[in-house]
Amino acid sequence: MADIVKRLVVLGSTGSIGRQTLDIVRAFPERFKVIGLAAGSNIALLKEQVREFKPGFVYHQGEKEQPSGIYCRYISMEEMAALPEVDTVIIATSGGSGLSPTLAAIAAGKDIALSNKESLVSAGEIIMKEVRERSARILPIDSEHSAIWQCLEGETTPASRIILTASGGPFLNYSLDELAGVTAEQALKHPSWKMGKKVTIDSATLMNKGLEIIEAHWLFGIPFEKISVLVHPQSIVHSIVEFADGSSKAQLGCPDMRLPIQYALTYPERLPNPSLPKIDWSLVSHLDFQEPDMMAFPCLNLAVEAGKKGGTYPAVLCAADEVVVELFLDGKIGFMDIPSLIQSVLDEHQPTPHPTVEVITAADAWARNRVRRLVCGGGS
Amino acid sequence: MADIVKRLVVLGSTGSIGRQTLDIVRAFPERFKVIGLAAGSNIALLKEQVREFKPGFVYHQGEKEQPSGIYCRYISMEEMAALPEVDTVIIATSGGSGLSPTLAAIAAGKDIALSNKESLVSAGEIIMKEVRERSARILPIDSEHSAIWQCLEGETTPASRIILTASGGPFLNYSLDELAGVTAEQALKHPSWKMGKKVTIDSATLMNKGLEIIEAHWLFGIPFEKISVLVHPQSIVHSIVEFADGSSKAQLGCPDMRLPIQYALTYPERLPNPSLPKIDWSLVSHLDFQEPDMMAFPCLNLAVEAGKKGGTYPAVLCAADEVVVELFLDGKIGFMDIPSLIQSVLDEHQPTPHPTVEVITAADAWARNRVRRLVCGGGS
Repeated sequence: MADIVKRLVVLGSTGSIGRQTLDIVRAFPERFKVIGLAAGSNIALLKEQVREFKPGFVYHQGEKEQPSGIYCRYISMEEMAALPEVDTVIIATSGGSGLSPTLAAIAAGKDIALSNKESLVSAGEIIMKEVRERSARILPIDSEHSAIWQCLEGETTPASRIILTASGGPFLNYSLDELAGVTAEQALKHPSWKMGKKVTIDSATLMNKGLEIIEAHWLFGIPFEKISVLVHPQSIVHSIVEFADGSSKAQLGCPDMRLPIQYALTYPERLPNPSLPKIDWSLVSHLDFQEPDMMAFPCLNLAVEAGKKGGTYPAVLCAADEVVVELFLDGKIGFMDIPSLIQSVLDEHQPTPHPTVEVITAADAWARNRVRRLVCGGGS
Repeated sequence: MADIVKRLVVLGSTGSIGRQTLDIVRAFPERFKVIGLAAGSNIALLKEQVREFKPGFVYHQGEKEQPSGIYCRYISMEEMAALPEVDTVIIATSGGSGLSPTLAAIAAGKDIALSNKESLVSAGEIIMKEVRERSARILPIDSEHSAIWQCLEGETTPASRIILTASGGPFLNYSLDELAGVTAEQALKHPSWKMGKKVTIDSATLMNKGLEIIEAHWLFGIPFEKISVLVHPQSIVHSIVEFADGSSKAQLGCPDMRLPIQYALTYPERLPNPSLPKIDWSLVSHLDFQEPDMMAFPCLNLAVEAGKKGGTYPAVLCAADEVVVELFLDGKIGFMDIPSLIQSVLDEHQPTPHPTVEVITAADAWARNRVRRLVCGGGS
C-alpha cells in the first residue's frame, strides 16, 4: 500500500469515532484522501472539516439540500458509500442510521471500516450474506473486535473461544440498590474510555458488551456458546482468543480508539504514529479480571438471549435500547428501568425469522414506539 | 498436513523437553513417527522409549556402541539429524552438546524444533547464516520464543519491541543478603514451571532470561535495545510483542511446555489436545508485572552485555554458566558466586569477533577450564 492513496468516505464524521478517524487521516496525509463526509447534527464542525479535508461530497442529516457555506456536492450517505472512486467507507454513525449506508457500501464491494454496532446486530445475517456475495470486507473498528481480528490474523485454525473484555463501566461492583439510584451524569463518567453518550451509557449497563457479543458472532462466525465476557477494569487487554491447543492470544493497548481505527485503515500494515500512546509497563503493576455480575447488569443476558433467538429480536433489542438510553439521559427513567423496559418490549415482540431489511425496519419502529408508550403512557 | 505423517528425531529424549515431546507424539499417533531417539545418560528410560516408539535409529552418550537390549541402528546425533527420511529434528539436549547436531540438521535443510538455548546463544551468527543459506527453519520451543513467534504470525510489519516475561524464579523480591544464603534445594523449587535442573537454576539467577534475550535477538533479528524483560510471576503471559502503531499482542497459556512443543510440531496448524490445560479465567483475578531487579540478579545484565559485545563472549558466558551451575548444584559455591564467577571469566576473556565453530568450541573449553581453576585453585 506504500504508494497508494486510500480514498475514504467518513459517515458520522463529527461524532467521536468520526473525529478520531480524521485524526488518523491528518497523521498520514500522503496515505489517505477524504472523498466524502457525512454528519448527523453538528453542522458547524462539518463545515470546518469540509474546509480542512476538501471532500468532493458531503451530507448532513438536518439539511434537505446544500447547506450554506459548503460548496461540494450534496448527496445521500447511500450514494456516498457507493461512489466508484471510494476504497473504504468508515461507518461511524450511531444507532440505526448505519444500516442502509452499510448495505450500500457492501453492494458496491467496498472495504467497510465499521464502528456502528447496531447495523450488524440488527441485520447481521443479511449483512454477512451480502458481504460474502459481493466480496466486500468488514474491518471492525470496535476495540474488542479489532483485538480479535488482530489475534486471528495469520491463524489457519479457527478460534475455539472468544473472550471479550469489558471495563465494567463506572458502576462495577455496585449493588442492585445502588444501581437503582445512579444518574445520567454518573453514568457518563466512563473510567477508561472517552466515547459518545449512547455507547457510554451502554457500557454502564453492559448492553454494549451484549451487542458486541452479537457483533462478534456475525463478524467471526462463532457460535454464542463460544463467546464469553471477562471484566477487565483497566481496558488494556482488548480481547482474548483461545485456540484448540490451549494457547490464547490477546491484543493489548492503551484505551485509545485511534489505534483500532488506524489498524482498520492501514491493514495489513501497521504504521508508526507517534501520537498514539504505547503501554508503559513500568506503570502497569497488574491487570485485573473478574466475571461479570449478571444479576446487576441484566442487559448482557438480554442481548445474548436476543442474539441466540435471532430473527427480529436483535433489531428490537437495539431499537428499544436506543430509546431507553435517550429517556435515561433525559432523566425520564431510572438506570434499572433500562433493562426492564427492554425486557418488556422483547417479551411482547412477535418475531419474524430470517427477516428482510423492511421487516427489520418495521420491527425497529415498532420497538421504539412500544418503549415510548410504556414510558409515556397511551396504551398499546 | 492433515494426511501427512511428520517424521521426527528427538535429541535429548529422556530429558524434560524430550519426554514432553514424546507425550505430544503419543497424543497424535497418526500425525507423527519417531525415526530416531538420542539420550544423554538415562539408558533405562531410553530403552523404554525405544520399545514404545520403535525408532529405526538410536544414540546414547554413555555408550560407544549398540547398548544391549536395543536393536535399532546406533548412529551419532549428527547423522541422525541429517537422515533423509526425517522432517523435523527436535533439539532438546542441554548445554553445549546441542550445537553440532543443530548445524547438521540445518545443513540438511530440516525443520528444527529448538529447545536448546546454548547453541543459538553461542553460535547465533553462524546458525542464522546457515539457516538462510540452507532454507532450514528454526521453530522455537522455549515458551517465550514460541509466544513471540505466535504473536508475529501473520504480521507484515516487524515488531518494534519484544517484551520477554520472566517468572522471577523462586527468589523474586529477595534481597542481596538473602540471596547469598540460598541453597540448591531452594533454587530447584521453581514456582510455576517444571523443568530440568540446569534451566531451573538459570531461572533462579535470571541467567535464563538473559540467554533468552540473546536467543530472541538471533531468532527474530531484533536489536538488543528493542528487547526488554518484565517479571510476571504467574507465568501465564509468555511474552509480548509491541508494534509501531502502539498495539501489542501477547500469547497466554498455562505454564506447560507441551503447548509450545505441540505448536512447533503442528505449525501452522493448532490441534485440539484435551490433555493440554486451558486458562480458567474464573481463577485468574489478576496478572502481575514488575521490572526485574538488576542489582539482585546480575546474570541478566551479564548476558545482555555478552550478547551486545558478540564474538566469543556469549559462548564463554554459556560455558561458564554451565560449569558454575553444576558447582552450585554440588554445593561447592554459593548462589551469588554464580554471577561473580561468570563475570570474572568474561572479564579475562580475549574475544574473537565472528568466530568459527572451532573458535567457539575452544572458547567454550577455555571458559569451563577457567571456572574450575578459579574455584578449585591451580593458578591460571
